[in-house]
Amino acid sequence: MSRKFKVIFQPAGRRGEIEEGTTILKAAQLLGVDLEALCGDKKVCGKCKVRIEEGYFEKDNLESSMSHITPPEAGADELKHIKPEDGPGIRLACSCEIHGDLKVFVPERSRAGKQVVRKAAKELSIALDPAVKKYTLTLTPPTLHDMTTGDYERVVMEMEKDYGLKGLTFDYPVLLQLQDVLREGEWTITLTVWQDREIVKVEPGHVDVCYGLAVDVGTTTCVGYLCDLSTGKVINTESMMNPQVPYGEDVMSRITYAMSNPEGLKTMQDAIITGLNEIIDKVVNEVKKDGPNPGFAIDDLTIVFNTAMHHIFLGLNPVYIGRSPFIPAVQRSLDIKARDLGLRINPGSFIHVLPIEAGFVGADNVGVLIAQEQYFQDEMVLIIDIGTNGELLLGNRDRVCSTSCATGPAFEGAQIKFGMRAAPGAIEKVKIDPATKEPQYKVIGKADWHTHIEGKINAKGICGSAIIDVVAEMFKAGVIDKTGKFVMDCGSNRVRKDNAGKPEYVLAWADETSINQDITVTQGDVRALQLAKGALYTGTKLMMQKMGVTRLDRVELAGAFGSHIDREASLTLGMFPDVPIDKVVVVGNAAGDGARMALLNKSKRIEADERARWVNFVEIATEPAFEKEFMMAMHIPHMKDKFTNLKAWLEEQKAPIAASIKG
Amino acid sequence: MSRKFKVIFQPAGRRGEIEEGTTILKAAQLLGVDLEALCGDKKVCGKCKVRIEEGYFEKDNLESSMSHITPPEAGADELKHIKPEDGPGIRLACSCEIHGDLKVFVPERSRAGKQVVRKAAKELSIALDPAVKKYTLTLTPPTLHDMTTGDYERVVMEMEKDYGLKGLTFDYPVLLQLQDVLREGEWTITLTVWQDREIVKVEPGHVDVCYGLAVDVGTTTCVGYLCDLSTGKVINTESMMNPQVPYGEDVMSRITYAMSNPEGLKTMQDAIITGLNEIIDKVVNEVKKDGPNPGFAIDDLTIVFNTAMHHIFLGLNPVYIGRSPFIPAVQRSLDIKARDLGLRINPGSFIHVLPIEAGFVGADNVGVLIAQEQYFQDEMVLIIDIGTNGELLLGNRDRVCSTSCATGPAFEGAQIKFGMRAAPGAIEKVKIDPATKEPQYKVIGKADWHTHIEGKINAKGICGSAIIDVVAEMFKAGVIDKTGKFVMDCGSNRVRKDNAGKPEYVLAWADETSINQDITVTQGDVRALQLAKGALYTGTKLMMQKMGVTRLDRVELAGAFGSHIDREASLTLGMFPDVPIDKVVVVGNAAGDGARMALLNKSKRIEADERARWVNFVEIATEPAFEKEFMMAMHIPHMKDKFTNLKAWLEEQKAPIAASIKG
Repeated sequence: MSRKFKVIFQPAGRRGEIEEGTTILKAAQLLGVDLEALCGDKKVCGKCKVRIEEGYFEKDNLESSMSHITPPEAGADELKHIKPEDGPGIRLACSCEIHGDLKVFVPERSRAGKQVVRKAAKELSIALDPAVKKYTLTLTPPTLHDMTTGDYERVVMEMEKDYGLKGLTFDYPVLLQLQDVLREGEWTITLTVWQDREIVKVEPGHVDVCYGLAVDVGTTTCVGYLCDLSTGKVINTESMMNPQVPYGEDVMSRITYAMSNPEGLKTMQDAIITGLNEIIDKVVNEVKKDGPNPGFAIDDLTIVFNTAMHHIFLGLNPVYIGRSPFIPAVQRSLDIKARDLGLRINPGSFIHVLPIEAGFVGADNVGVLIAQEQYFQDEMVLIIDIGTNGELLLGNRDRVCSTSCATGPAFEGAQIKFGMRAAPGAIEKVKIDPATKEPQYKVIGKADWHTHIEGKINAKGICGSAIIDVVAEMFKAGVIDKTGKFVMDCGSNRVRKDNAGKPEYVLAWADETSINQDITVTQGDVRALQLAKGALYTGTKLMMQKMGVTRLDRVELAGAFGSHIDREASLTLGMFPDVPIDKVVVVGNAAGDGARMALLNKSKRIEADERARWVNFVEIATEPAFEKEFMMAMHIPHMKDKFTNLKAWLEEQKAPIAASIKG
Repeated sequence: MSRKFKVIFQPAGRRGEIEEGTTILKAAQLLGVDLEALCGDKKVCGKCKVRIEEGYFEKDNLESSMSHITPPEAGADELKHIKPEDGPGIRLACSCEIHGDLKVFVPERSRAGKQVVRKAAKELSIALDPAVKKYTLTLTPPTLHDMTTGDYERVVMEMEKDYGLKGLTFDYPVLLQLQDVLREGEWTITLTVWQDREIVKVEPGHVDVCYGLAVDVGTTTCVGYLCDLSTGKVINTESMMNPQVPYGEDVMSRITYAMSNPEGLKTMQDAIITGLNEIIDKVVNEVKKDGPNPGFAIDDLTIVFNTAMHHIFLGLNPVYIGRSPFIPAVQRSLDIKARDLGLRINPGSFIHVLPIEAGFVGADNVGVLIAQEQYFQDEMVLIIDIGTNGELLLGNRDRVCSTSCATGPAFEGAQIKFGMRAAPGAIEKVKIDPATKEPQYKVIGKADWHTHIEGKINAKGICGSAIIDVVAEMFKAGVIDKTGKFVMDCGSNRVRKDNAGKPEYVLAWADETSINQDITVTQGDVRALQLAKGALYTGTKLMMQKMGVTRLDRVELAGAFGSHIDREASLTLGMFPDVPIDKVVVVGNAAGDGARMALLNKSKRIEADERARWVNFVEIATEPAFEKEFMMAMHIPHMKDKFTNLKAWLEEQKAPIAASIKG
């Protein structure tokens, strides 16, 4: 038996007994402490800095006998991330093991905060024909004269007579309730039927309301839309952070976590199932408050996610989609009993998992596809769906290609020095005056635009959509040039060099922030964004080449990111080939819309399976033209043949970033 | 919290702490003590007599401080069964509650003993086409060039190409293993496919052996036949007492147990599932000794039972088949995942539950039907399948009728004073010399015929098949007349009156027995047998009338009972209308044969479903002619129009017996 030590986290005040040798990060996860872990244990992001306040003492009495003892030396990996300005006692939580009682302080910058969910449901226009419907039957009570017919047979016969549904079967646990429910309902019952095939619920008397839940599991955010299947209306929306975030902020970190921990896959699967059960309980609370399992009122569930989230949710080993040749376990849609997955909706109901396209293009992209229906359109449409990764769909009724772009998590604020998720305190919109180079910005949670002169604003960092803004604005204001290089002599004290001699732009002075540090945009941040937008641009370009397309008729921006991006900034940066600004359309959470459509109309499920196979997946990284296109696409805005000295820098930067994305 | 008391059962030596107020019978069941409980708690059979040796003392130390304290007075129900010759301290275990520490002795007569199983498998002649088959695939390892195909899709595609099987799906938990098994087998795998539809197992490399289990759950005995599905051979047979016996020896006792105990249904369902898991583990031991779940080697299972066992096995409330209008929950065959039932064969496999005919005619009778295939024959065949109840099938290719006869459990030795199951010590064959009225008998476990002069034989009781013998022999020897009445002046000291003045025949003197009591056949025993055989005869007669059949071409005797019955004795008694003795055929465990056939050839499953509906169930008890026919059928042998004074006696006897059978 290993020893255990007492660990307290401040300012949260969480405490517990932790086994010797556990990292502080793991301890924080065990105790439910809000602590960022962007890279998920790989010791590369440096976001999980904590301050050891007291520790390594001998006595049991934690409160009284604490004395400061220096923790063991940090290793080289760790020291890379720790700066003198961080102050004394700072360690990376992922690297520092527990070998004695500890008191740990989590600085505000290291706290993840509550995500602001930006996945509201829009009105859909779709014919109602759900996979799950309710039917009420009134039977003649049996007598000795028709005693040779069982309850099952009696119900099935009547369903054929009254509703024309032939060959229905009963889910076995539902059959177990049939006898008593028939008698409780005095021979009037309501049956819930899945796909005109299986009876998945039986209730006494007449019941007409029928609920379904459409779920979109993002790498960062999960959202559930509770729908009334008789009207198609969204009754309630509930969202939460993906509870897998503590095991890694991006897809590859989670695949790595699954590979390097024997119980890693199960831990993450349990986390998402538990999380979805919370969403289920909360979302249904509006309509059904009583009973031990309110979620049982939900009779259908559709779900979309990227391929890694898909595999982890199902308990499939995600390692094979993380390494060449990137083979998924299954592509087609699946219908799995809720009870087999442990989801607390009606246990007899099926969870409909939408199909995936390929190893990198998931059910969420299929959701986008069936929601936007490029395949019914004459115009050549590009859809950019950016969550934590970027996925592209290009085409029209003749042909659609898809690809996944290794944008890295820059658009979500990760790998950006002051990047953060869309949470209160995040700068979400930026303008820079070209004359003075002075910025104005908007912070989530506050209505107005701010400048320095207005005093304390409590900014904390920069979220994804603002990164686009600020880089575009820096370019337009002449703070950076078209290669992304800082113009040091642009005449502003906001443009300066950091301790290591690297250029940066001060977006907010320390006194405007809640973290008492200047919030800056660094040369590295600009480069990360250039890589990300270059990846998107290259993906589009190569797909266009493959398809012989020279011109886009329309660009649709989808996803949480897509809903908040400034269309002009995205054009300025050159995230996609030129198109008139009125042909750039923000379509919101199209992946979630697709899940809802599959919930409301069962033919959309068939369409999804067919179209997922019909779409032509293009692997960008193996295209011979990739290298050249990618390097050209890094410019702001994209300027063909004007490529200068970017190549050497690119070679240096690309490898580790690409590696961290593809594993 | 209620108090607990120490209880010791002798001579078994089982002991335990039992909650106050528990009956001694329940305590015996909890501690696994072998104690008869024919009526299953209804206080009517009087078979569970025990002797309180010491009890109702105060101290903890059970061994040292025991002192004899008189237990509370027995009630009237109980006193009815307790005779002076039983000796002091005798109580009915089902009626006596525990209110202090106890030492209880179980006399040999009250011990159930180990059943001798008489359900050996005979050779079947049937084309092999099992529902479950194994297929080996060798796949080309995927490369970056075919990365858009998932493992699932790759396997399904190849199965179509190699074996022509289209549209296969994966059982969800099997899908979870696919990725790793493909790689472990270096892209050679063996798939187990159910009904050319669903993949229920995936194994690395080439596997060719495939096992299935055919199960026959009788009211008293369960048997499992392990078959090699590639040869059709029975590899191993394993049987056991039905572990539900402690909750009631017959169907109605168990239905009553389910009704009167809140957890009764679940308790009995758990008992049979646990029992079948024991059979699974033992039966597979021959072929697979290792691993924590040897039973997982079994990929298919078919099962037959009567309607009540069927309902209890599935967890369906059996109460509605026990009372008018006797409606079963379901009649058609069911395919239920082994994991949903908790049976420890391959968890992805389906348990195929054969269809039932009606409330009283179960899947076991359907098994008889598809094994004997009356519906393909020109001859008019009567099949009598007697387990704890009697079921009849009458017909030929044009039409088959079925019925269930309330024979009562007399044929199995219950409700017979010295009746017992077919266990060591049971008298199984009897001959009586017409001149001397002296018997010769055969005891299970000993090869020879015995008479008194040979001394101590350790007979214990009379089993079902011997009851037929002895009554037929008594009639032929003139000990009873054709009305079943004893001939007191037949000139033998073996014919005498008991303490209550009722006639009886001494089959074995006390010194030949292990129970030190004369084993007798009483007037009541003869009457019970007359009722039973009368029920069979009446059932046949009424079916013949309904069908316009005047003559039987053949009689087939099926079941454990049918395998051991003396054909001549059954004719002598008049169990069925006259037929030449060479047209009486013993067919063995036809119900089990039917289960095996459904295992070996999937078209037999379709045949079973079709024929179960095609057979015409005849409810004997509601036929207007029943009363009259039944009363006439009581004679030995059946003598139409020679009915004398039986009617008054019948009225008196029939009601309580019929009630105990139908509830």
